[in-house]
Amino acid sequence: MSRLVLRKRNRRQPLIDRRGLSAIAKMLLERPRATINSLSPTWQACIPLVALILLVSSTAAVAQDAPTVESLAATTDELRVGLDTLWVVLAGVLVFFMNAGFGMLETGFCRQKNAVNILSKNLIVFALSTIAYWFIGWGLMFSDGNPFFGTAAPFFLSGADNSPATGDAYEGVYSAISWAGVPLAAKFFFQLVFAGTAATIVSGAVAERIKFIDFMLFSLLLVGLAYPITGHMVWGGGLLGNAGFWDFAGSTVVHAVGGWAALMGAAILGPRLGKYNEDGTPNALPGHNMSIATLGCLILWLGWFGFNPGSTMGVGDGSAIAHIALTTNIAAAFGGVAATFTAWSLLGKPDLSMTINGILAGLVAITAPCAWVTAGAAAIIGLIGGILVVLAVGFFDRIRIDDPVGATSVHLVNGLWGTLAVGLFAKGPDGTLYGDGEGPLAGLFYGGGLTQFGIQLGGTLLCGLIITVLSTIFWYALKALMGIRVTAEEELVGLDIGEHGMEAYAGFVKDATGAPSGVYTTSSTSTGIAGNPN
Amino acid sequence: MSRLVLRKRNRRQPLIDRRGLSAIAKMLLERPRATINSLSPTWQACIPLVALILLVSSTAAVAQDAPTVESLAATTDELRVGLDTLWVVLAGVLVFFMNAGFGMLETGFCRQKNAVNILSKNLIVFALSTIAYWFIGWGLMFSDGNPFFGTAAPFFLSGADNSPATGDAYEGVYSAISWAGVPLAAKFFFQLVFAGTAATIVSGAVAERIKFIDFMLFSLLLVGLAYPITGHMVWGGGLLGNAGFWDFAGSTVVHAVGGWAALMGAAILGPRLGKYNEDGTPNALPGHNMSIATLGCLILWLGWFGFNPGSTMGVGDGSAIAHIALTTNIAAAFGGVAATFTAWSLLGKPDLSMTINGILAGLVAITAPCAWVTAGAAAIIGLIGGILVVLAVGFFDRIRIDDPVGATSVHLVNGLWGTLAVGLFAKGPDGTLYGDGEGPLAGLFYGGGLTQFGIQLGGTLLCGLIITVLSTIFWYALKALMGIRVTAEEELVGLDIGEHGMEAYAGFVKDATGAPSGVYTTSSTSTGIAGNPN
Amino acid sequence: MSRLVLRKRNRRQPLIDRRGLSAIAKMLLERPRATINSLSPTWQACIPLVALILLVSSTAAVAQDAPTVESLAATTDELRVGLDTLWVVLAGVLVFFMNAGFGMLETGFCRQKNAVNILSKNLIVFALSTIAYWFIGWGLMFSDGNPFFGTAAPFFLSGADNSPATGDAYEGVYSAISWAGVPLAAKFFFQLVFAGTAATIVSGAVAERIKFIDFMLFSLLLVGLAYPITGHMVWGGGLLGNAGFWDFAGSTVVHAVGGWAALMGAAILGPRLGKYNEDGTPNALPGHNMSIATLGCLILWLGWFGFNPGSTMGVGDGSAIAHIALTTNIAAAFGGVAATFTAWSLLGKPDLSMTINGILAGLVAITAPCAWVTAGAAAIIGLIGGILVVLAVGFFDRIRIDDPVGATSVHLVNGLWGTLAVGLFAKGPDGTLYGDGEGPLAGLFYGGGLTQFGIQLGGTLLCGLIITVLSTIFWYALKALMGIRVTAEEELVGLDIGEHGMEAYAGFVKDATGAPSGVYTTSSTSTGIAGNPN
Repeated sequence: MSRLVLRKRNRRQPLIDRRGLSAIAKMLLERPRATINSLSPTWQACIPLVALILLVSSTAAVAQDAPTVESLAATTDELRVGLDTLWVVLAGVLVFFMNAGFGMLETGFCRQKNAVNILSKNLIVFALSTIAYWFIGWGLMFSDGNPFFGTAAPFFLSGADNSPATGDAYEGVYSAISWAGVPLAAKFFFQLVFAGTAATIVSGAVAERIKFIDFMLFSLLLVGLAYPITGHMVWGGGLLGNAGFWDFAGSTVVHAVGGWAALMGAAILGPRLGKYNEDGTPNALPGHNMSIATLGCLILWLGWFGFNPGSTMGVGDGSAIAHIALTTNIAAAFGGVAATFTAWSLLGKPDLSMTINGILAGLVAITAPCAWVTAGAAAIIGLIGGILVVLAVGFFDRIRIDDPVGATSVHLVNGLWGTLAVGLFAKGPDGTLYGDGEGPLAGLFYGGGLTQFGIQLGGTLLCGLIITVLSTIFWYALKALMGIRVTAEEELVGLDIGEHGMEAYAGFVKDATGAPSGVYTTSSTSTGIAGNPN
Repeated sequence: MSRLVLRKRNRRQPLIDRRGLSAIAKMLLERPRATINSLSPTWQACIPLVALILLVSSTAAVAQDAPTVESLAATTDELRVGLDTLWVVLAGVLVFFMNAGFGMLETGFCRQKNAVNILSKNLIVFALSTIAYWFIGWGLMFSDGNPFFGTAAPFFLSGADNSPATGDAYEGVYSAISWAGVPLAAKFFFQLVFAGTAATIVSGAVAERIKFIDFMLFSLLLVGLAYPITGHMVWGGGLLGNAGFWDFAGSTVVHAVGGWAALMGAAILGPRLGKYNEDGTPNALPGHNMSIATLGCLILWLGWFGFNPGSTMGVGDGSAIAHIALTTNIAAAFGGVAATFTAWSLLGKPDLSMTINGILAGLVAITAPCAWVTAGAAAIIGLIGGILVVLAVGFFDRIRIDDPVGATSVHLVNGLWGTLAVGLFAKGPDGTLYGDGEGPLAGLFYGGGLTQFGIQLGGTLLCGLIITVLSTIFWYALKALMGIRVTAEEELVGLDIGEHGMEAYAGFVKDATGAPSGVYTTSSTSTGIAGNPN
Repeated sequence: MSRLVLRKRNRRQPLIDRRGLSAIAKMLLERPRATINSLSPTWQACIPLVALILLVSSTAAVAQDAPTVESLAATTDELRVGLDTLWVVLAGVLVFFMNAGFGMLETGFCRQKNAVNILSKNLIVFALSTIAYWFIGWGLMFSDGNPFFGTAAPFFLSGADNSPATGDAYEGVYSAISWAGVPLAAKFFFQLVFAGTAATIVSGAVAERIKFIDFMLFSLLLVGLAYPITGHMVWGGGLLGNAGFWDFAGSTVVHAVGGWAALMGAAILGPRLGKYNEDGTPNALPGHNMSIATLGCLILWLGWFGFNPGSTMGVGDGSAIAHIALTTNIAAAFGGVAATFTAWSLLGKPDLSMTINGILAGLVAITAPCAWVTAGAAAIIGLIGGILVVLAVGFFDRIRIDDPVGATSVHLVNGLWGTLAVGLFAKGPDGTLYGDGEGPLAGLFYGGGLTQFGIQLGGTLLCGLIITVLSTIFWYALKALMGIRVTAEEELVGLDIGEHGMEAYAGFVKDATGAPSGVYTTSSTSTGIAGNPN
């Protein structure tokens, strides 16, 4: 059957027979040459570039792009690889869509005068992540190497793995991920969308005051260099994976890592103008579009059904996928409800932005343990995540870390919590949630003591240390080279005009102060509370 | 292969070998204990809670969460279960995304001063539905019991089924859904997203005047108690399923049920201030954001490709899925076009909100018959649905039921119509659309007389009666306990400030009246027609 | 297992046993008849319509809707067909969602006074496409016929194919697409969403001045008649497919075809009022909502993972799907980055609308070659696409073709480029990217000379010629019959009031001029550059 797959749009006559168009084709065959010559300045400039990229990525291409062509009759092995590939690609597509979720969430939580800037950042960041991860990130993260990074195939997705799907006879260079029985291109795509997620977390925390070019360069450095190092340590055959540190879908590898980079960015940039008063009390700077922010939250929730269940990277008998979808959803639900009631009791009103961040907190927290805990444990993990996020928003405001969208409270704090939760709630290798006896030791509440908890704590802190150091170096280097913050004047007018020369909502009358307007001018419309992430 | 699925992120060294981090781990192993003690007030309060939830859901967890681990070689049986699970989970994910569709649709159709409130309702409703359906709804609906509700496993997804996927040797407690060959967690997830849909239908009809807390409580009651009863009667082995009542994907079970609850809510709350004049004529209260409303419609259309084809709960040879995708899409198309032209001829203009509601009407109507009717019949069912929804909007306005988004016209009226359409257009067991001779009798237009039509009519009215009675009890109980409607003052200012202390669109200048503004002040910009659902 | 698929919601008692409800059913059985009689004017008008549609589509229905029912035990052949069908339907669903992408993109890029009109167009266009393609488009495109269109089964998806999935013993009428091993309904659904895409491309180019009814009629003509002709020539067994012209997923068949139709529409309508000054210089007319435009771009990017990988119409061993997802994503990334930097260097700022159009340009360009080129070639194809789209926007402004959203620059220019890129970068039948030796000859940069390039050029120009002629006829016929452009007065006030009697954003204060407002009144907020597609 695979014979047919690439035959797409076949014809009833053989290729050689091209009656009818052959005259036209011959006639036009001469024209392109003339065209090329007439356009030669541009074209001839392109040719070296074409040659370069083709050359650099050619070895890679031969190995990576080889669809195997077998007999027409489908075998169960071929069906298994096809089914697993379908799942990995579709799960990757769901995770890809989280870019839209982050984009809408972060834009909605910020002010309209900076909307174009945030949209631009969140749109281009996945394009940049693709380039950086294809160029070097993937190779550092997954190719064989030392305990900290891969060295066997650093560039352009080169080399081969030795997984069942490709059936390469020769030795592969991606030992740590050879267990997944899908083509290398599928593994790369799935890991790429994860890397892109880490970068997009940073966008929100540094919003409304960072220069566009600095964010672009930091994203390239994060996805190309920093993220792959901690990723290699945990998932790529490095130090932490070998030490028994377990993170199923990335509470640490993706979320805490993105969160640490975001925290350093927000700290080094300093707070937005007008965020904190002389006495240290914060002012609410309300987001401009709660509709798209809520949409963003629901798109992220959707994407998490790819993020967590997809991290199986195979379908098996479906039980793992179904179980993980269940734990993921339960944690999100309890996180959202817990944050709503926590905010309600602390702030007096059920704050929508807290409901949103509570759902995301539950999702981030369940990401590491989703495969190894029961539905009941998922409820508790999500519930605690929802409480933590509300407290964390207040905490960061007290230490004057200005994170306009609450990214550190969601991704860093709950990335840590979720990683630790493995050490508390994992059922352990004797439990029914494990395949083949692999996975974390039993957690504290399942009679395993604090061993796994300790490993989780040590592992996530080590990752945090590495990312904090690297991020700090990156941010300060960018600051020294070109400055990372826009001018105060540009910040007041808005980055949309300053950085991009356009505004997001032409034709609508805005209020310069960003304060509530129209009928509301006499009543307070901002909660004015320290915990408001807007 | 299933052996690999849970192995995720394996390492090249065995677990026991944790060189490198072991020193760090040991060092940190002590710290958590100290941390716990220092945080003890919070932590120690958590421990009983943890114990309680783990205890309550522990029996459930053992049974439900058991991924079977078999040999490495894939068998066709294992592949079948994996493929079916993939389909059910992905279809469930599409239906989950309908929460975003409802959220954008309903928010866009209401006024901006209530946007945060509607967004909050539509976001938290799925979280609440998850909790209620996990706690009790699923057990009432699908566990074995009497003709009206399940009694064998009422709480926390406990017990086991005896479907091929889990291969439980002992007797299961979910006989009515044991035909579906996927893990219990997948069945639960798919049914949960349906239950959430019923609750979200209510949100639109009661918008712009209901207290937030009442909507939350009503949702818990609906998803936890009322929806499972009629659901058990039709799909869970109860009275109506046994009587030959057929509803493939829920025109009655989900949409009419949600619609009846919505109707009672809208009636008991009364119309919004300013909706009706002294003489009974309605005023248009235009929605504030047709862009997100249209987006919502398209997200719902997308989700319906999970809703209807996914209700196969298995892939088979794919023909049922393909056929249902076809009938679903054709009904939506004819519904949208029919409503557009009906509105055009009645109101003089092609009203966008009618196109939107017409598409949804076609989708709701085809939901019950989608598997058992031809593409031609689907076109007629959708076309009539599109006409019905325009007439229904006018009808409800005439009887002064103020439904801001037209939820009852879409979901109740067309839920009824779609259920009856089974009795008119079903091809019958001799037709080629049936597997194994199961399904409704031939409908009126296929020579089956009015027998099936009568059963459909009786069944849907019985469900309507039960839901109407239960909803009325719930609404009046809430009204007696705490009042269900916000004050007139809060309603005029908007529920966003009153209920949530924030506004949706900070930084934009609004018009207090909600009337057209700016350049339009001298011309009428509302259709001012009775049929406008805004 | 397929036996179970349609059994949905079975009961524990046999159908014949309908205790409990039988009394109610009998009682109600009489009522419908009375109801029908009382409603007779409407009902009796419906009955001939019902009869007509059922009659016309009945032959079709018998053949198309036949789910085969086989033994319970799954075979690998049955699993293969199920898996492939799942993939084709899910890929089609992703492409369907591109309607939301185009809707948000085009609406966001236009002014708020025309938002309802563009939303209405982009919502109803898929409904109309469904009707037109079901009625005649599919039959013209894929049924057996002459080199230009199908004649064997022109209407209502009638007849049968002879693909492995349906296993029809008798001769099918869809030879050109019989290679795809999925049910006919799945093939139709997948091709329908492609046809809908072509129609929606036109919407953007003719926005802000076309009459609603004319757009509707043109869409019916395009999807029902013009698109199927060029489609038959390339994919349906016609002239160009037989001549060795290759277009994997539709750079020409969908995008250039839609682009030519759009170009003719924009040219014949003429520019919007105020777009060009007396001296020919263009004025920027900024879009009103960059948030939804960016969301639209990301939804389109998402949908392309169905568009390109889905065009395999089968899973095989997954390698083709994974490879195509990779090339598609890389081209999008390089297109977005290239357009951003091109705009930055030419216009002085990184224009968000150029990033958006650059991503789309990369996606359109990789559509034809995605299966036959390496990842490195995909990067170059995307990069050139991103540069081309910025230059094209400027070019069309210089020749005073007013395309408000840049649809021709994206879809026509890059549809051409992508088609030609096959002739430059295809690895050729000896390459590892080919199954079974089928596909284009090696391209220029792979030692194949200019043969394939010539065929590609000739083929795409022939398609362009046919579509240009047909579109011109359609547009002028509509113009002659009823006029295609709204009055100048209506255009100034906005089409929302004129065509639809409603506005998109009630309750917000707008600025009549569409110029920047509020705090920005003293500073220039539009880029004011020729290249700005807003």
